[in-house]
Amino acid sequence: MRLYPRYNVGMNFADHLLSKVSKSSPVVLGIDPNFSLMPSCLLPTSTSAGSVEDALVLFSKTVIDACQGLVPAVKLQSAYFEQFGTSGVRALATVLRYANEQGLVTILDVKRGDIGSTSLAYALGYLQGYTQVGTHKYVSDLESDCVTINPFLGEDSVVPFVETAKANNKGLFILVKTSNPGSSLVMDVDCDGAPISHTLGRMLDDLGRDTIGDCGYSSMGAVVGATAVEELNALRRVMPNTLFLMPGIGAQGGSVDLVKQAAQEDGLGAIVPISRGITYPKTKTTTVDAYQDAVRDAAVGFVQLIKEA
Amino acid sequence: MRLYPRYNVGMNFADHLLSKVSKSSPVVLGIDPNFSLMPSCLLPTSTSAGSVEDALVLFSKTVIDACQGLVPAVKLQSAYFEQFGTSGVRALATVLRYANEQGLVTILDVKRGDIGSTSLAYALGYLQGYTQVGTHKYVSDLESDCVTINPFLGEDSVVPFVETAKANNKGLFILVKTSNPGSSLVMDVDCDGAPISHTLGRMLDDLGRDTIGDCGYSSMGAVVGATAVEELNALRRVMPNTLFLMPGIGAQGGSVDLVKQAAQEDGLGAIVPISRGITYPKTKTTTVDAYQDAVRDAAVGFVQLIKEA
Repeated sequence: MRLYPRYNVGMNFADHLLSKVSKSSPVVLGIDPNFSLMPSCLLPTSTSAGSVEDALVLFSKTVIDACQGLVPAVKLQSAYFEQFGTSGVRALATVLRYANEQGLVTILDVKRGDIGSTSLAYALGYLQGYTQVGTHKYVSDLESDCVTINPFLGEDSVVPFVETAKANNKGLFILVKTSNPGSSLVMDVDCDGAPISHTLGRMLDDLGRDTIGDCGYSSMGAVVGATAVEELNALRRVMPNTLFLMPGIGAQGGSVDLVKQAAQEDGLGAIVPISRGITYPKTKTTTVDAYQDAVRDAAVGFVQLIKEA
Repeated sequence: MRLYPRYNVGMNFADHLLSKVSKSSPVVLGIDPNFSLMPSCLLPTSTSAGSVEDALVLFSKTVIDACQGLVPAVKLQSAYFEQFGTSGVRALATVLRYANEQGLVTILDVKRGDIGSTSLAYALGYLQGYTQVGTHKYVSDLESDCVTINPFLGEDSVVPFVETAKANNKGLFILVKTSNPGSSLVMDVDCDGAPISHTLGRMLDDLGRDTIGDCGYSSMGAVVGATAVEELNALRRVMPNTLFLMPGIGAQGGSVDLVKQAAQEDGLGAIVPISRGITYPKTKTTTVDAYQDAVRDAAVGFVQLIKEA
């Protein structure tokens, strides 16, 4: 009943992702379509819903094609699609499908989290890809391989995502310590002698324990900003078997050294999403082909930087 | 350039909402379409995307019509629409428009929150209803009057929503203390002698100060569960001018007495969303008309209960 066949039925998510990382790099292509930053050759030809949808898809396919062979996965920021309402969401569905067809792991950055019954509705739509009621299966065209989760509402808000992910060999990245300046307001507050981020890390370590694959890592990953200079080692100790998704390199001033530390001895423990740094290169371009070349050049450079580390 | 005219241009959101409350009740109709709980006469006629979309719209319009004159606002839980992908989101756009046409304030329960630039994308799509790039305006069909916000990422994740709401006379309800059991994990952690929920409350009180309307309340509201027995009075002291959206009555065991306390002397300080308690009445019904009557009966009873308090 799936809209399209999924690769990972029966295979541990972390193993699958890391097998792709070992064939390419730990760099994840972040897709954040922003009409204020795109070259004019990629902008919608009119303000109609159809033109907006086409432009979102064209941008996304262009950067995916530009990064072929360089990255194991894409991270789609849902906000930049939802921003345009239904037509944006339809574009998101098209891009999810395209990335999957290209053999890329899809990480849908939605940062959802709600009371249990509501979290389950999100999990079914975004991770399972269908909802079963009696003998009927209602499909979702927004199925992805992995989503990001906001744990603010506590463990009962996270568990439906964990259980749905486990049942479908999917993955999660749960926010533990984000890369923005304001993250200290809640995540750094001391809770029994350590920051709340540690409490969340311990919860995550526990919830993911039975999803540890042959690679030694769990399918329940953590978002830990590449800006978390002071917390990184302690968070790694709390979550020794957790994959870290480490945003913040580039625009937010994150550190490649921190990524190196988080990657551990096997070099597999950290993956790095990069969006603006490669999809909005400084080179001014006037054709889609020239833009694609500029994106590929930026991606090659960034992959080299991370691999050298 | 709006898809449809909006009522509140030039009018303070809190004043507008409370003028509607005073003409009806402080009860907000929660719309959480769930095929496992609906009577069979409302279920999709097939598993096709079109049938699912039609069923989501039919359910929503039916409960909106059932509650005519009884409620000032609807709270749409986005998860129960997103669950079905693009067709669910298209249904959500249709329901937002229908509720607006019926003169109801629309509260879209999306619980979004992200780094600043991403929060802005959400805010433009859900609160402003369009994105301006140069001289072009790209509209969103998911514009609502108010959204719920998750403040886990800190103040810089909330500010774009606040600023967009202010610029468009819209409203917010920011999660301060939710009604689920797990909410204690983060929200109750002590931060300088008081729970984190107080820190968030103070931030919200401050951010909303210049949106206080003639009614004495700010357009930047708080979600405070009707289950927060121990915290309620202290949270009220921290946020004297904040509207409380108080979920948890019914399925989650919340208290009507707590709503009464939160409403303050003017009786205007609290509004109560109710979903399962009225939209899935215990009376078994086999026709849409009979179902609609049962929903109206349940709504009348619940409104009476809250008004008496």
